[in-house]
Amino acid sequence: MRISFIGLGNMGRPIAASLLKAGFDLTVWNRSPHRADDLVAAGAARAASPAEASRADVVITMLADDAAVAQVAFEGRLVERLPRDAVHVSMSTISVRLSQRLAAAHQEHGGTYVSAPVFGRPEAAAAAKLFVVCAGPEPAIERMQPIFDVIGQRTFRFGERPEQANVVKLSGNFLIASVIESLGEAFALTRKSGIDPHAYIDMLTATLFAAPVYRTYGGLIADERYHPAGFRLPLGLKDVSLVLEAARDQNVPLPIASLVRDRMIEGLAQGFEDADWSVLGAVAARAAGL
Amino acid sequence: MRISFIGLGNMGRPIAASLLKAGFDLTVWNRSPHRADDLVAAGAARAASPAEASRADVVITMLADDAAVAQVAFEGRLVERLPRDAVHVSMSTISVRLSQRLAAAHQEHGGTYVSAPVFGRPEAAAAAKLFVVCAGPEPAIERMQPIFDVIGQRTFRFGERPEQANVVKLSGNFLIASVIESLGEAFALTRKSGIDPHAYIDMLTATLFAAPVYRTYGGLIADERYHPAGFRLPLGLKDVSLVLEAARDQNVPLPIASLVRDRMIEGLAQGFEDADWSVLGAVAARAAGL
Amino acid sequence: MRISFIGLGNMGRPIAASLLKAGFDLTVWNRSPHRADDLVAAGAARAASPAEASRADVVITMLADDAAVAQVAFEGRLVERLPRDAVHVSMSTISVRLSQRLAAAHQEHGGTYVSAPVFGRPEAAAAAKLFVVCAGPEPAIERMQPIFDVIGQRTFRFGERPEQANVVKLSGNFLIASVIESLGEAFALTRKSGIDPHAYIDMLTATLFAAPVYRTYGGLIADERYHPAGFRLPLGLKDVSLVLEAARDQNVPLPIASLVRDRMIEGLAQGFEDADWSVLGAVAARAAGL
Amino acid sequence: MRISFIGLGNMGRPIAASLLKAGFDLTVWNRSPHRADDLVAAGAARAASPAEASRADVVITMLADDAAVAQVAFEGRLVERLPRDAVHVSMSTISVRLSQRLAAAHQEHGGTYVSAPVFGRPEAAAAAKLFVVCAGPEPAIERMQPIFDVIGQRTFRFGERPEQANVVKLSGNFLIASVIESLGEAFALTRKSGIDPHAYIDMLTATLFAAPVYRTYGGLIADERYHPAGFRLPLGLKDVSLVLEAARDQNVPLPIASLVRDRMIEGLAQGFEDADWSVLGAVAARAAGL
Repeated sequence: MRISFIGLGNMGRPIAASLLKAGFDLTVWNRSPHRADDLVAAGAARAASPAEASRADVVITMLADDAAVAQVAFEGRLVERLPRDAVHVSMSTISVRLSQRLAAAHQEHGGTYVSAPVFGRPEAAAAAKLFVVCAGPEPAIERMQPIFDVIGQRTFRFGERPEQANVVKLSGNFLIASVIESLGEAFALTRKSGIDPHAYIDMLTATLFAAPVYRTYGGLIADERYHPAGFRLPLGLKDVSLVLEAARDQNVPLPIASLVRDRMIEGLAQGFEDADWSVLGAVAARAAGL
Repeated sequence: MRISFIGLGNMGRPIAASLLKAGFDLTVWNRSPHRADDLVAAGAARAASPAEASRADVVITMLADDAAVAQVAFEGRLVERLPRDAVHVSMSTISVRLSQRLAAAHQEHGGTYVSAPVFGRPEAAAAAKLFVVCAGPEPAIERMQPIFDVIGQRTFRFGERPEQANVVKLSGNFLIASVIESLGEAFALTRKSGIDPHAYIDMLTATLFAAPVYRTYGGLIADERYHPAGFRLPLGLKDVSLVLEAARDQNVPLPIASLVRDRMIEGLAQGFEDADWSVLGAVAARAAGL
Repeated sequence: MRISFIGLGNMGRPIAASLLKAGFDLTVWNRSPHRADDLVAAGAARAASPAEASRADVVITMLADDAAVAQVAFEGRLVERLPRDAVHVSMSTISVRLSQRLAAAHQEHGGTYVSAPVFGRPEAAAAAKLFVVCAGPEPAIERMQPIFDVIGQRTFRFGERPEQANVVKLSGNFLIASVIESLGEAFALTRKSGIDPHAYIDMLTATLFAAPVYRTYGGLIADERYHPAGFRLPLGLKDVSLVLEAARDQNVPLPIASLVRDRMIEGLAQGFEDADWSVLGAVAARAAGL
Repeated sequence: MRISFIGLGNMGRPIAASLLKAGFDLTVWNRSPHRADDLVAAGAARAASPAEASRADVVITMLADDAAVAQVAFEGRLVERLPRDAVHVSMSTISVRLSQRLAAAHQEHGGTYVSAPVFGRPEAAAAAKLFVVCAGPEPAIERMQPIFDVIGQRTFRFGERPEQANVVKLSGNFLIASVIESLGEAFALTRKSGIDPHAYIDMLTATLFAAPVYRTYGGLIADERYHPAGFRLPLGLKDVSLVLEAARDQNVPLPIASLVRDRMIEGLAQGFEDADWSVLGAVAARAAGL
């Protein structure tokens, strides 16, 4: 199975490396070619363009946003050059609308589209411990399973329509954002009441809230450690905007997402553009006069 | 150490039983006396009134709400009859204001007040697996520790001012309510997108949200199983109102709490008075036209 | 018709003066007696206590808040001393709950209770141009009409239950608060877009928004003139809290009121305690980084 | 001065008729040509395409939305065919982004762009009583003033950058939406309190809220008369979304706009797609269990 991998950013590079190490026949492409050097040195082939990379059994894209994926898929001609029966696996966190558009375009050109965004940060990608959330035609998903097994610790399947995976992924990011905002508010209250923030988060994560998301973001807010950013505030705002768009397309109100969006914009107005999205904790603190 | 236990509801009864089993010299009182029968049969003494129960080294109250605690403490004369150097431990989820008032009143009468609300449902109380959140004068807390060790799996201390424990407890309930509301919204979106709710919550709780609060409430919403209520919606509204009051007293805005409060009221307007507070999932579904 | 007037603050004094000028037999009482001096010099009788003032055909209370009204009515024994068939007219902006309680108490003691809060600021009171919003038993209202005609430019009747007038009054204050908040947001956007705030409010009030409330508050926000306060922020928060309480008692969610409440608390956290409630414009500007 | 008028919908037709009646040399174009028949019969010339209509001193567009304006301006080649020194006046309620793009595109091709959206409904357009909100280069605005004088009762100028007029227009629609939502909430509360809705709105509009916007929308909500729609809910949602986008581009949080957006989506989920946007009153009533 020949695999092409397009997009060698902080997430794409370790994923591609896992595939290479597992013995797959791998071709890579990245806009800044130098980011492919390590992989090429380790045995990957280098494609000169997305179009060239499209000649494979499986083409995986792991790119920054909708614009980058659309660029590769349409202007870069991935959609039209993908061989019949080959599969395009999109791992980026993209909009439901783009996922629907990709599914339709691939169908028109005889290819197959699978959406498989992942939960996990670069460290998890490097350790091949990602969680893969996928949707698309069952047979194609079956064929992709060996790939998912190599890069992730577990795969979750959500339906025949690829965009369903994007709904799940975006709703997951919405839940994370809700946790950050609610923790920000709770910390503002407890700090103003003279309660030690580390004792507070330790209690929470030792009891009902013993989950990674509370440990990670609770720790960052307790420490007021918003730099360097693991995930920058504008990216958080992008994802919350995408979930609001997806919900709007289905006539689903998401009042907490709207509230979080406003607080993120407030954070940008206060100059937190380069901060981690947990900086919502600072926005809540400032609103409370801390 | 003679302990009096006032309030033998769903939480109070198993806690009192644990204390009795551990060998403490226990006196009990409950407004409906028959709820004390089992404990008396097992060796506890029965007090004829709160005032009589107040003659002890430690008086624990575990009552429904502010009104019930104030009734016992002031009209019932617990505050004035508590022996000098004895300790009143309040385990109920009460307001910060009442806790401040109790602390001041006890101080005036020579007694000591400790606030020690707990996290955990009746099953956890029966298994002596509660989490105790306490605050108050350090020496009194030290003396109470053997009691907390008997009823809970772990104790968390939060400061010298008893009401700090109430802030922590109320903020914890606020965080639970936030989880319920955000899950309700996420389920509305994913269900409308054709995603199986059980597959969805399984994925969440297997990954970033692997915490009891997501398992419990995610399961209830996925099942749309809002009866019988583990914790009724009006009680949830009471606690969210108390956290908003506490935050208002400190000039801390809590926009998510305000939003949740409105959704709870919407739920009451729809007749969900006897439903579990996870019925916010049904409110979100209905707003989405499901 | 002997009238007693209790409460000679910024609103009460000019109202009482209008009644005196109109020839009514007037007795006055105020906690700080010196505020009654002018009226006594002009012919009013001075009561030594609320209880003494209660011996009249009509007792009007115009006091700061629920606590002050309850103090006069219950501790001050207005309710029990009011003659049979006499009428207590409450003009203060008080809670629906207190109005219900007063109606019940008066009924029990043989008196009649009418609620008649007013719209208008001290200048309008001095010019006898208030708007009177009243509710209560029809015959009593009829008897009070000559009084309302003297102090206001128009009377609006809303029902047989006195608290209905309080609902109307509180909901009106809620609408004013909504106007302030929405103007604050609109100004933040237009100012950040380089639009002159005075040109902006001039356009609004010359077109669709040609109403006093937009002129008054739009002007204050355009000028950023939040001192001296015509109506202080904490009083605005009190009224928004009362409308939320009244709505909660009827199971009516008021999401805009909740949002405004949070912004007011944010304003208090920023030190705007002595500012006019139009200072919500400054809160919105600050959130936008202005 | 030769004027071309593009877009003969409910607003465009009466405006074009006013210009013709005032003696301007008028050419018209509409996608459905038959809507131009009356005007042509009355003396207007008919253009075969937007491109042909672009050969004029002034080209006015009054189209449904961003897509329609962009279609005419770019694919229809208005921008490139507009004569040097001629002026494109956009009267539609379009996005700030599109207005910026049009200004830049016209500048590149030697034309001039003026933004001049209007407040007023079709009846006001027919009576030449619109309010014109304009922005753009001062000399071009000066030249357009005779046109604005013919169609409107008053013109308001807001700056040199055309998109400033769009910010003002969108913020105005946001304020209208805020009024509708807050009235909806106030009516829910007062109706549940047994207060007659017509008496209520009569009081409001006779006092502090004596403005057209309260009369119009208060009347519709009091009557629960949401059909036929003067302005359909999806159009209201479009405008609120545009103001949120404009505010986001400037880092201005608009929490009330976010809240209104969610309620509008809730309305769509309940099947109110063809209702007037005042149907937010029904959404609020339903949330209150009415």
